[in-house]
Order: sequence, then structure tokens, then C-alpha cells
Amino acid sequence: MSLKVGLIGTGMIGTDHIRRLTEVLSGVEVVAVTDIDLDRARAAAPRGAAVLNTPQALISSDAVEAVVICSWGPAHEEQLLACIAAGKPVFCEKPLVTSEAAARRVMEAEVIVGRRLVQVGFMRRFDADYRRLKRVIDSGSLGAPLMFHSVHRNASVPAGLYTSDMPLNDTLVHDADISRWLLSDEIVGVEVRVPRRSTRGGDLRDPVVVLLHMTSGVLVDVEISVNIAFGYDIRGEVSCEQGVVALPNRPATVISDRHGIRQAIPEDWRERFIEAYDQEFREWIVAASKGTATGPSTWDGYAASLTADAALRAVSSGGLERIAMVDKPALYDAPLELAAA
Amino acid sequence: MSLKVGLIGTGMIGTDHIRRLTEVLSGVEVVAVTDIDLDRARAAAPRGAAVLNTPQALISSDAVEAVVICSWGPAHEEQLLACIAAGKPVFCEKPLVTSEAAARRVMEAEVIVGRRLVQVGFMRRFDADYRRLKRVIDSGSLGAPLMFHSVHRNASVPAGLYTSDMPLNDTLVHDADISRWLLSDEIVGVEVRVPRRSTRGGDLRDPVVVLLHMTSGVLVDVEISVNIAFGYDIRGEVSCEQGVVALPNRPATVISDRHGIRQAIPEDWRERFIEAYDQEFREWIVAASKGTATGPSTWDGYAASLTADAALRAVSSGGLERIAMVDKPALYDAPLELAAA
Amino acid sequence: MSLKVGLIGTGMIGTDHIRRLTEVLSGVEVVAVTDIDLDRARAAAPRGAAVLNTPQALISSDAVEAVVICSWGPAHEEQLLACIAAGKPVFCEKPLVTSEAAARRVMEAEVIVGRRLVQVGFMRRFDADYRRLKRVIDSGSLGAPLMFHSVHRNASVPAGLYTSDMPLNDTLVHDADISRWLLSDEIVGVEVRVPRRSTRGGDLRDPVVVLLHMTSGVLVDVEISVNIAFGYDIRGEVSCEQGVVALPNRPATVISDRHGIRQAIPEDWRERFIEAYDQEFREWIVAASKGTATGPSTWDGYAASLTADAALRAVSSGGLERIAMVDKPALYDAPLELAAA
Amino acid sequence: MSLKVGLIGTGMIGTDHIRRLTEVLSGVEVVAVTDIDLDRARAAAPRGAAVLNTPQALISSDAVEAVVICSWGPAHEEQLLACIAAGKPVFCEKPLVTSEAAARRVMEAEVIVGRRLVQVGFMRRFDADYRRLKRVIDSGSLGAPLMFHSVHRNASVPAGLYTSDMPLNDTLVHDADISRWLLSDEIVGVEVRVPRRSTRGGDLRDPVVVLLHMTSGVLVDVEISVNIAFGYDIRGEVSCEQGVVALPNRPATVISDRHGIRQAIPEDWRERFIEAYDQEFREWIVAASKGTATGPSTWDGYAASLTADAALRAVSSGGLERIAMVDKPALYDAPLELAAA
Repeated sequence: MSLKVGLIGTGMIGTDHIRRLTEVLSGVEVVAVTDIDLDRARAAAPRGAAVLNTPQALISSDAVEAVVICSWGPAHEEQLLACIAAGKPVFCEKPLVTSEAAARRVMEAEVIVGRRLVQVGFMRRFDADYRRLKRVIDSGSLGAPLMFHSVHRNASVPAGLYTSDMPLNDTLVHDADISRWLLSDEIVGVEVRVPRRSTRGGDLRDPVVVLLHMTSGVLVDVEISVNIAFGYDIRGEVSCEQGVVALPNRPATVISDRHGIRQAIPEDWRERFIEAYDQEFREWIVAASKGTATGPSTWDGYAASLTADAALRAVSSGGLERIAMVDKPALYDAPLELAAA
Repeated sequence: MSLKVGLIGTGMIGTDHIRRLTEVLSGVEVVAVTDIDLDRARAAAPRGAAVLNTPQALISSDAVEAVVICSWGPAHEEQLLACIAAGKPVFCEKPLVTSEAAARRVMEAEVIVGRRLVQVGFMRRFDADYRRLKRVIDSGSLGAPLMFHSVHRNASVPAGLYTSDMPLNDTLVHDADISRWLLSDEIVGVEVRVPRRSTRGGDLRDPVVVLLHMTSGVLVDVEISVNIAFGYDIRGEVSCEQGVVALPNRPATVISDRHGIRQAIPEDWRERFIEAYDQEFREWIVAASKGTATGPSTWDGYAASLTADAALRAVSSGGLERIAMVDKPALYDAPLELAAA
Repeated sequence: MSLKVGLIGTGMIGTDHIRRLTEVLSGVEVVAVTDIDLDRARAAAPRGAAVLNTPQALISSDAVEAVVICSWGPAHEEQLLACIAAGKPVFCEKPLVTSEAAARRVMEAEVIVGRRLVQVGFMRRFDADYRRLKRVIDSGSLGAPLMFHSVHRNASVPAGLYTSDMPLNDTLVHDADISRWLLSDEIVGVEVRVPRRSTRGGDLRDPVVVLLHMTSGVLVDVEISVNIAFGYDIRGEVSCEQGVVALPNRPATVISDRHGIRQAIPEDWRERFIEAYDQEFREWIVAASKGTATGPSTWDGYAASLTADAALRAVSSGGLERIAMVDKPALYDAPLELAAA
Repeated sequence: MSLKVGLIGTGMIGTDHIRRLTEVLSGVEVVAVTDIDLDRARAAAPRGAAVLNTPQALISSDAVEAVVICSWGPAHEEQLLACIAAGKPVFCEKPLVTSEAAARRVMEAEVIVGRRLVQVGFMRRFDADYRRLKRVIDSGSLGAPLMFHSVHRNASVPAGLYTSDMPLNDTLVHDADISRWLLSDEIVGVEVRVPRRSTRGGDLRDPVVVLLHMTSGVLVDVEISVNIAFGYDIRGEVSCEQGVVALPNRPATVISDRHGIRQAIPEDWRERFIEAYDQEFREWIVAASKGTATGPSTWDGYAASLTADAALRAVSSGGLERIAMVDKPALYDAPLELAAA
């Protein structure tokens, strides 16, 4: 009765998802894997899983009921379209695709099928802290949200590999997506401001401050620092008309010693979001077992793509870059489900 | 390849464990259930599971590789002895048994087998907050522990059903077990003090303060209140020679509104320890799949039984009631495993 | 040996300062008062103090060694110039003056005297929380400051009296001044963004977000809400290269009850800054007794005036409004003293 | 119009009080000092103050309206009786006196005068944190108090000078007095338990746990550690019938860095209670200026003396040592004033 899953891309994140699907979660089985490096695929394959030569072979395999895509971004469009054509539910790690046009093509294909098949890997929506925060906002007990202050601090980024555009087209997408989700709103404009540069990152444009203008008028300011050294520190605070809601400290031991009274900060995103990744797949398995998808959709991947593009334009122009979305297909109008967490 | 489990006792906790074993956890399958009320067993049985007439039939069934005991306490001894005789790993909800003599009989049977088969349901040892706290203590960075202040607050207890002895022979066992585990120590004496009584519980002896004297000299004071109304509030703080470590607030949304800046307190033990229950069974499945048990042992159940007895004597005598344990069988000398959490 | 003080303006704040100078602080005596409403002056005058007919009479009185100005803003310039001409130290409530030109005239007069005589009423610089925060920044232990997030929330403002310009020309000055002081920096540009409007304030432009660009490149974002209902909530967080420093919660009792675990938020600025007002005058008395002034200077009042003007322009233009200051007179170059607090 | 004060004993605490009375507080003047070491008295005397040869000369001097006693404990009785005989208000540092009999003699003398003249130096009652905590208890909103957990941690004590009796007859008095005051109750019995000893203090009996039994049945447990190294850490939590109230963290800057998210802990009692000392004298000056005393009374000093004696007996006996107080003179029945703080 387990969901039979094929996984494409056995790199770091793919390998971690194989572990999750085989050792942590119930109701699921990894039956096939593939990778551009077949040796790597063989090494990562769980016992009993087939190693297939191509993504196409995996997607079309009768043994595979649902697909997990962990390949690199430029390969996503073709693989997503193949899954949609095969009518198979697919979990796709971010980015959904690498251009707005590609996002629209995937969206159109899914709309034609008339059934949600794609879930994008925005794991923050499955984090218990963010979910509790959204419940308070949605309850309306504090009035309408007016501002959201989102802070994204990375301990470090790989020198040389992480470029000055990446805070805007890679890191920002998490804050942008969680803003849309928390506020049940869309982004209509993006501004970028570049503060005094940290000397820790050499020439890297770091930190950056991004202003997201929402349809409702809510103003989101995102503070992104990617070389903060001391840990992975994610903060969020929503100011409403008559109250403020914020993410709490992580539940670390309270130590009193010569450094003061203190709690540890997570070292990295793995530690911070490990339960969110588990929950993300837990819910995906439930939906995919019914032949569909819930959670972050192709529409959300499209919005993320538009936001990243606008942010890159905004850092060049120095001005407000507007976002114009196509009309939202009815397929994506369904209420965003919020699992009891 | 899944562990095939038979479960005895399909009451509230048993039903919840069936949900956990079938919907949440991987590597396990519930293949048989039984209950003194067979209708209740039939209603609770997951699809495909056999409903057997007696615990004995379930334990001896060839289809059953490991057993979960959720029956009432007085039935535990016989069921545990049957599991041990059958060489099957068994998870037993607390209390292990209801007398010191029974605990010794179970322990002797297990020692004869020469392999740990029993895990007792002290779920706090699997809670991430307590595990982090223990890691700090064990690291030695703050010197030796000297005192432990453990606070156990229940929102309410069932009027009429919960008697004045139960803070001492039912509630206290969690604080006693976690003290032994956190401090890697044994309890040698128990004192009870009865403060001003809460008017919320009628004639109920509530609150109580229990002093546990440990072999090392560490003094544990346990504050137990069972009718505190506002929530389920578990606190713990260990004073070491050069630092203090404490459980943190639970990770609830930080709200600023007319009630101040605040975080919600868990409503009950289900909310507070839900992840601990999952983790408890996750580790049990791993060990049981290898034909053995880790986690809280028969020895720990024996210690809990002695502590409860001593606490009841102490509330009567007003004095220090000493605990004399038998020599610890080598079987239980293995280092307490602390899974990476 | 006490400093003999004359006070101009016996309205709400003036009366409170009389109480402070006579009942709370040592080394000071109020010997003369005046007000445009002499009855009000008589009612407010402490025992033994003369009630004089005009500010000029008070400033020139031989009995008066130092002056406290609590009159309305438009009257400040003339009174300040008279104090400077008389060589008498003067404490002036904010705003220093009501135009940039006036600020320059007062500054020029003081520069000609060649000795600081004016202290402006920016009380936040005397608040223990802000002082501790500044000490951490100045220590350099966390690297250079890069961003400052300043949050200014008022419970409410007087309907009808508080206009949409006032968040920018009245409320913002505190955040602007504390930014300059915390960062030892100047403001070179101001932007204003207007988020979704709170329905609590009718037509009032509330909240507003202000971006202050500092000479060093540090970016300050100020979140101002003036109708938040639940209290007076001042927050500040400075992101440095390798650490973050923030104002703490106020030291309110930690209550656990059905509203959660919580601490009260101050009701208003009086409650929040009462010790800062005391300390502000304590240090003024010390300096004025030596015939001079320390603390916020005419230069700081001038900077505040420029910032308010730029903020008003920015809300109209929607763009970045630059600030051009005159060269800083050497008189104001002295290191900002930070009393041991 | 200032209160004219004579101060006896110009050691460390006396010198600090001279600073407080001359530099910090208003409405008071130190007109005379004395000390067993007259050179030390001369060095400490503020400008204009007389240096008198004996306490008796100081107390009887016409220039002295009120007296501050900072001499060593054994000298207090005679000096207090002289002040009472002279009808002069007197602030006496703890201990009031060094025996129960002496406390009763002072109390009897004051009762004969029929007017409160003595204030004892229990400064915690003037601390804003403790006052807020008391207001919550007294409001009754959380029901009756049932237990109080008081934690007293010193960074270190002077090796050689600080003996094993001192946690019980010197340190404990603060916790005992604050318990009586917070709970508006009296201590009727004392127990002492000695946990595992800290290796940091050599042979010192440290830590100790003291149980104070109150008239109402409230149970107070006091955890005293005097060599905790990391700071001066005072904690207090009162468990009521339907809520819990606790002292907050001190308002230290919140730093996020490689040690976690943290706040500094006070270094010593000076840092922790500096405002409380100021407030203590502020209120004493008001009362003394009216020829009387408020705040902690001779009765409170008597209670402290009884508690210390009982604690010393309890550590020897290992049992419950009861306290029998004389009937409370009506003079001390006045409601304990709680200044608006």
C-alpha cells in the first residue's frame, strides 16, 4: 500500500530525501532512482530500488507512482512536463524552473490536466513555528497585518560559488514565498537597498535589504545576511493593527554561565528545518497517494521566479520594479491547506 | 522487512500507539491486537491486523515479532513474563508493574534470558529538550551537578478518579525517572512535604513537594501541582558547580498584545510530548527489529516502583524514607544510549 | 552649592521636570519659573521659587544660573539665543527649534561663545538599555554595524491633534537621533514608504516605514506605528558583521497563566523612559554646574531638524531625499560622553 | 529643609551610603560621621560634615536629625537604643542585632516610644522586580500563593572569611525576609538540607537548600550557592493556585553571537541592587523627615534573627526547627507600605 516513488538526482539533497523516504517516513517506498552520474545513483539507491538510465525512463516506469526531482534547476522543466504528461504527482526541489516562461509552460500543462500534480520544495510552510504564526494572523484576533519584518541570516556561503546575485535569486525566494503564504497575498513590487558591505565576504554584495510590496499594501522588509558566522538565524515578525506576532527562539537549552544566560542558535538550515522537511514529505505522500498535490504549487514557483527576476532588476535600477502576474488559473485558487500541526 | 507488532490493550493510549505505528512511523506494522473488550479491539484494529482473544494468544502468535503492552498495570507482570519467555521484545507502558516484588520477578526472568527485551514507557527520555539538557550536563563543561529543580504542573486531573496518592505513585515517576537519567544516578531516599493546599482540588493533597536524595548527594526537589488550570507546564533546572542548565520555553509564537508579550503554554501532555512519543517508538522499533531493547529498562521500572513506594511511606511518616535496591544485574550496566537528537 | 535653575513653560512636561528637579534629584534647586499663563506658573512653582513675568526676565535674573526650556517649539530660538548671550547653560526640550535656519542661528551663536551651553532633550541617549547596546557596538567585538532595525510603537495618539506629518516630524526624531548616536554616524538620505494603513487611526497615515541612509552606508529602517493599542513598545536591533545586538524586553514580572507565559509591555513613554529622564537631568546638572553642557547638542538638534524636513519631502516625492549638513563646528567634535550607567 | 544625617561606620558600605546621600539623592545632607578609626572617618566625611569621636556624640548631636548605622553587628544594639532614646529615626544596616534577646530589647524600647524609628537594611523590598512580583500576588488574580522557590547564587565569597554557617545566618536572611514580605506571612519552621558539595569552595558547606514553613502553610524552598563563578543570580518564582509569577531576567542587551542568543548576568550584588539601595534611602528620607520610619522594621529584624538561629539549629539536628515569636506589638501591625514603583 506504500506510495512507490522514483527519485531523480542523487546529489546531497537527493540522498537526504532518500534517507527521509526510507528511514523516517511511513507509507512510502523508493523503487527507482536515476542521476546523470549513474555510479552515484547506484551508491545512493536503497535496497531493492532500480537504477534507471534516464529521467524519462524513470518517469514513465510503471513501477513509479510519483516522482521526486532533485536534479539541477535547468533540467526541471523537461522533467516536470514529463511527469505532468504521465499524470504522476511530482515533488520538485526549488527552483521550480529557471525562467518565468518555463514556469508558465509548466503551469499551462498542469492546468490542461486540470489537477494539481506539482509540489514545490518551499519547506518553510511546513515548519511548526511558521504554521503557528500563520494561525495567529489568520485568526484575525490582532487585526489586519500591515508589515512583515523577515530576517534571513546564514552562517556562511561557499566562497567563490556563491555570487552577489544569489541573495536575490536564491536566498530571497524563501522569504518571498513565506511572505505570500503567511499573508495570503501576492507581491506586486520589489525594491532592493544595499547597506554597508560586510568585510567578511570580500566583494560579495552582502547584506541586502529587500522591500516587497504586497497587493494589500502590506510592506515586507527582508534583511538578508549570508556570512554572519555565528549561526543560521531565521526571524520573522508581523505587525498587525493591534498586535505583533513573531517567530520564537528555537527550543535550545537555557544555560547560565560566564557567557550569560543563553540559548544556542542553529548551526545551519539542516538543523533548523529538519522537521519541516519531514513534514513536507509527510503531506506530499498523503496527497500523492491520492494522485494529486497540495502545498506550494506551480503558481508559487511562478511567483518566486517573478520575484527573483524583479529583485535582480531592482538592484540594478535602484527603483521599484513591478511584478505583473498572469491571471491566476482557477486550479490554484483552492484554499491553501494548513495541516494541523 | 517491517517489524510485526502485536498490541495488548486498545484503550486511549493503545489506540494512540496504533495510530503512531501505522500512520507516523516507518519500519513497523501492527499485525495483531487484543483487549479485554474484544469489540473495542476490533474497532481499533488497523486494516489487516488480526484480533486475538487473549494476550497469551497474541504473545505466542508466530505472526508477532514484538509486543506493545497498553493494558492496565495489574496485568503487566504476567504479560511481560510471557513475552520474556517467548524471547520477544516488548514495549510496556508505565507502570512496569505494581509492586517491587513483581518488578524483581520480571527482572530476574530477563536476566536469565541474558538479553534486554523490555522497554518501559518513560517518554521524557526521548524528548529533545531533555536530551539537549542531558548533553550539557554530561559534557562536564559546567562541573558536577549539585541540585535539580523539577516542576510538574498539570492543568487538571479527573475529579474523583485522581486520588491524593497519585501525585506520589503516578505523577512523580516521570520526575523520578528523568532525575535518575539526567544525573546518571540512583535515588537513595525520599522525603515529602505538603504545602498549603490548593482550593481548586477540594480535598486533594495538591500540591506536594518531594525531595529525592541521590547516591551522589545531588538533591532533587520536585514541585508537583495537578490542578493549575492554565496548562501543562513542565520545567527543569539543574544547578551545577559553575553553571545552570534549564529546559526552555516551548517554541510557541511570540505575541505582543494587550496581555503583554507572551507565548502559549501546552494544554496537556499530548501536546507537550507528542514528538517524544514518536521518538520513543522510533528507537524501540530499531532495537526490537534486532531482537532486543534499549531505552528505559526493567531496572528503571523497578527503581520507579521503589520510589513510588518510598514516597507514599514518606508522606505518612513525615521523615526520610530510604530506598535499598538489589545489586544491579550486569545486564543493565550498559551505558544508557542517547540517540543523536 | 545647588545649581539654581529657572524653568520656562509650566505645562505638562515642565511640571514634571519641576517635580524631578525638586523631589528626585540632588544638587539642584528651582529658583524661578515663568509661563505665558502666569496663573499656571504660580500653581506649578515650588516653594521659595520666584514667578517671573517673562522668559527674558527669568534668563537675565541674577538668581538663575541655568535654564530649562519647556515652552512650545516656536518660542525656543529666542529663548536659546538669550541664554547663550547670557552665557547660561540651558536644557531645551525637543524640538530644539522649528526650522533648519533657526538651528543654524543658535549653533552659530553658541560657536561664537566657544563653549557648549545647550543640551537638547533626547532622553533615549540616557536610557540604560540603549547605553548598554551602544557599549556592545562600540566595543567592536561584533565587527562593524551594517543595519539597524528600529521599531517605535505608540499605544495611541490624540485623535484630531496628531496629524499625518507627525510620525515624520515629531515621532521619528527619536529614532533618528538614537541612530546617529548608537552608530556614531550622520544621516545622508531619507526614504519613506507607506504600508497598508491601520484602520484604527481613520485617515491617519499610520504606519510608516522610514529608511535612513548613514554616511558609513549603514541602513536604518524605522517602523513607526502610533495606534497599536496594546502599549508603548520600543525595539531596536543592530546587525553587525558577526553578531546582532538588541534591546531586551522590559524587566516585567514573568506570569504564567491562561494567557500564556508573559511579561507586561509599558503603557506609555512615561513608564518606559522615566529613569532616562532622571538620568538626563542628573548629567545636565553636573555639566551645568560647571557652566557648560554635555549630552545631545545643538548640532544634534540641527540634524534632527534636517531629518524631519527630509522625511516630509520624501513622503511627497516617493524618492530618496538627501541631507546636506554644514561643516561640523569643532565645538561639537568632542567625543560623545557616555556616563557609566 | 534637607534631612540632616549622621552616619556611624565609614567602611565599605558606609562610604557607599555617603556617596548615595550626597551625590544621588535629594532632600538629605550628611552633617556628621564617626568610625572606630577616626582617620577613616575623616577621609570619608563629605565637605562640611563634622567628624565626631563617638557614636554617642553623633547620636546626641543637635545637628543630627537622623542616623545611619553601618558599624559592625555587635555594636548595633547600643547604638539603636541610643537613637530610640533620643527619638531620632535610624537606618540600620543588617543584621539589626546579633541575638534574639537583643532584638527584643530594641523592639521593647521602640514600643515604649510608641512610634516607629528603626528601618532595617533589607534592600530587596525596594527592588522594582520584587515589588512588581508582590503586586501580582497581592492582586489575588492568580489565587493564593502555595509555594515559593527562591534562588540565591553568589559568584564567590571571600575564602577564609566566609564560613559554613554564613549561608544560613548571613545570606539566607535576604531570602527569608523577602519571603515574609512577598507572602505577607511569618516563618514558623525551618529545615536545612545539604546537597552534594561544590568542589569550588573547598570545605565550605555549599550549596544548601533551606525549607521555610510559613504560617499559612506556604512552603518556601531556598537554593543557596555562594561560589557559582558566573555571576550574581537572584531568582524567585511563586506558584499560586492558578498561575505562577517569577522575577524576570535582568534587562541586559540581547546579543546573538557564537555563544548563542544571550543576556549578561549581573556580576555582583552592587550591580544587581543598586537602584534598590537608592530607593531604600529615598523612602527612608521621606519617613525620617517626618520623624518616623517605614519599610523593614525592628519586627522584621527580630524575625530574621529567629530564622538564622533556627537554620543553624536545623543544619545540626537535621530536623524541623520551629520558631516561636512573641506577640506582635501593635506598632508593627500597620500595613506594609508599598511605594508606587
